Amino acid sequence: MGESREDKIEESVASVLEEAKELQDSVAGHISKSLSDEHPLRLRALALDSKILALRSSLDSLLNNKLINHSVADKLDEDLQRARCIVVDGDASSLLPGHAHGKFLRMFLGPINVRASRKDVQLKVKEEYNSYRDRTALLFLIFPAALLILRSWVWDGCLPAFPVQIYQAWLLFLYTGLALRENILRVNGSDIRPWWIYHHYCAMIMAVVSLTWEIKGQPDCANKQRGVQLFLQWAMMQGVAMLLQNRYQRQRLYTRIALGKAKRMDVVWGETAGVDGQLWLLCPILFILQVVAWLLTTYVVTRVFGNYSFGYNCLSYGFEAYVGLSLLNTAFVGQISEWQVIICGLLLVVMAIGNFQNTVQTLLVKSRFKAKMRRTKSKQRLN
Amino acid sequence: MGESREDKIEESVASVLEEAKELQDSVAGHISKSLSDEHPLRLRALALDSKILALRSSLDSLLNNKLINHSVADKLDEDLQRARCIVVDGDASSLLPGHAHGKFLRMFLGPINVRASRKDVQLKVKEEYNSYRDRTALLFLIFPAALLILRSWVWDGCLPAFPVQIYQAWLLFLYTGLALRENILRVNGSDIRPWWIYHHYCAMIMAVVSLTWEIKGQPDCANKQRGVQLFLQWAMMQGVAMLLQNRYQRQRLYTRIALGKAKRMDVVWGETAGVDGQLWLLCPILFILQVVAWLLTTYVVTRVFGNYSFGYNCLSYGFEAYVGLSLLNTAFVGQISEWQVIICGLLLVVMAIGNFQNTVQTLLVKSRFKAKMRRTKSKQRLN
Repeated sequence: MGESREDKIEESVASVLEEAKELQDSVAGHISKSLSDEHPLRLRALALDSKILALRSSLDSLLNNKLINHSVADKLDEDLQRARCIVVDGDASSLLPGHAHGKFLRMFLGPINVRASRKDVQLKVKEEYNSYRDRTALLFLIFPAALLILRSWVWDGCLPAFPVQIYQAWLLFLYTGLALRENILRVNGSDIRPWWIYHHYCAMIMAVVSLTWEIKGQPDCANKQRGVQLFLQWAMMQGVAMLLQNRYQRQRLYTRIALGKAKRMDVVWGETAGVDGQLWLLCPILFILQVVAWLLTTYVVTRVFGNYSFGYNCLSYGFEAYVGLSLLNTAFVGQISEWQVIICGLLLVVMAIGNFQNTVQTLLVKSRFKAKMRRTKSKQRLN
Repeated sequence: MGESREDKIEESVASVLEEAKELQDSVAGHISKSLSDEHPLRLRALALDSKILALRSSLDSLLNNKLINHSVADKLDEDLQRARCIVVDGDASSLLPGHAHGKFLRMFLGPINVRASRKDVQLKVKEEYNSYRDRTALLFLIFPAALLILRSWVWDGCLPAFPVQIYQAWLLFLYTGLALRENILRVNGSDIRPWWIYHHYCAMIMAVVSLTWEIKGQPDCANKQRGVQLFLQWAMMQGVAMLLQNRYQRQRLYTRIALGKAKRMDVVWGETAGVDGQLWLLCPILFILQVVAWLLTTYVVTRVFGNYSFGYNCLSYGFEAYVGLSLLNTAFVGQISEWQVIICGLLLVVMAIGNFQNTVQTLLVKSRFKAKMRRTKSKQRLN
């Protein structure tokens, strides 16, 4: 009964098992061959990369010792930039060692490799990051604005806890997503400044802390919710700044990429150094926002102390980290019922200082570079 | 002045630029060659995979129509399992289409590919996931235990808000990490049951909600904090269950992997179906834990209603989802001051139902399979 069918299926199963073993061997062979083909290319990429760096430094020393004509040096510098762009921004970039996976990625994702081996995938990741930021910038503006409008028109000047907590939970999710994506971009060769990632870590902690902060209702609601209200206004202005950065700086970045002066994986966060015309439009806004952050911090600090003049004094010291930190340090000695006040204040101080420092640093680098160029040119004219 | 050095550096820069272009061409060539070599292998893997599935179904139909000897069928079934293991668990697995990246991964990470192309990397990810679970299971036990011990011995029966909130924030971080890692494992070919991932989404939401839940102090602290205390006790027991699952089930899994009956990427969460002896040790504990979860839910529900008999009635209906959901649904109609109660209760109900359903399902599948085997064997004996 069915003897022939039994034989037939036995045969098929045996052949399938054989095929599976053969396939395994072929695939293993393909993988090892691909790896061994890759090895010499990797060595070439590494050698070329260090050669370009060496040439750049010797070009700099020639220029400093006036052993080379300025226009020639300019042209050579441009060529070196182009060569480096080909190596670190082309297909060869996957062979160069990338930024190490930070602790943050390891903590959330484990040891998985998030480096895309193909350039088009890397670029897709970057594009998606940009569109994500566009979307969130809009929400960043609309969400707190809606809460503030509803507060005046519907809620009689008293925010209910639930929508504010939804907003805080959304902030936490948003900052976690941004921090993860920026870490992934960095691994994939973007030049994003580490500060902007740390900034999002601080914002994540602040969002968690704000979730535990009880939102008090009536009576005397307007006074109790003054901190929340300020926070929402500050968040709205941050939304405006994000939108501006996204639109103006990104256009500028595309021009630089087209000229071969920026890598295709670069994003606008860390890219202030290359922004020329729009920087002077953005700068006042960014500075005002940082001042607002400071005002808010001062407000929190003065609430803790109950001493307003001290807070405004602190503001007059400008953007010095020292003052803010020592203020908060003293705050720990005083009597405070809500620990969230201290943590949020501290985080705002840290973020304000960091933002300010990073903005100033990029401006200084740029102005120093410009001054040097001017000096070299005028000296050459004298010669 | 330095004319020769200028010439020399011009030459070097030109050659470097040339080299960069050549390298880009070679790497692009290598990538496209590797892809075109991969293509036939991919087709072979796909064909073989569908052939194995077809043979399995025809083997089943032969067995059902008693056209094949049972011991032969057993042997062929084992061979097919081995062939499939080679295809889906060997180097060829990277060529087969994996599980799609879910929405969760996209939301947090963007469109980056987290599928490791090499088997050893995938296995490392799995190992790290296991060791992560071991570490967290211990903390899962120690953290709430420490809080409860300190509560009785140091804090005079009244938990302060700060350490509890730290614990809740840690839970949120932990569940987010687990959910991300499990999604990554799934993309890499692990058979983890979707429910266990959804379970962690629910736990994430619950952690966020619990962060917004105000922890009230004196007076009448013991009564106000009854919910928190129960929650901590429940969390401790979950820690014990995790430790048991980790130790016993994993040993069993390693045996199955060695026999070629499980893939090397499988993890213990979804693996209850294959657990034999230890299952009857684990089952009572798991069921008790689920009963505790239900008790806790009932407690929350009864607190909302102020009607205890209704709550205990609900318990007597067993693990029916319908009751819990309709209860909470009615709760929305009543007067409740804390929305967190409703959400946490609802989530606990959903998680309890899902856990129960999944445990029962795997048990049923196993017992049906055993019954079928017994039936077939006894029939053959009769023949």
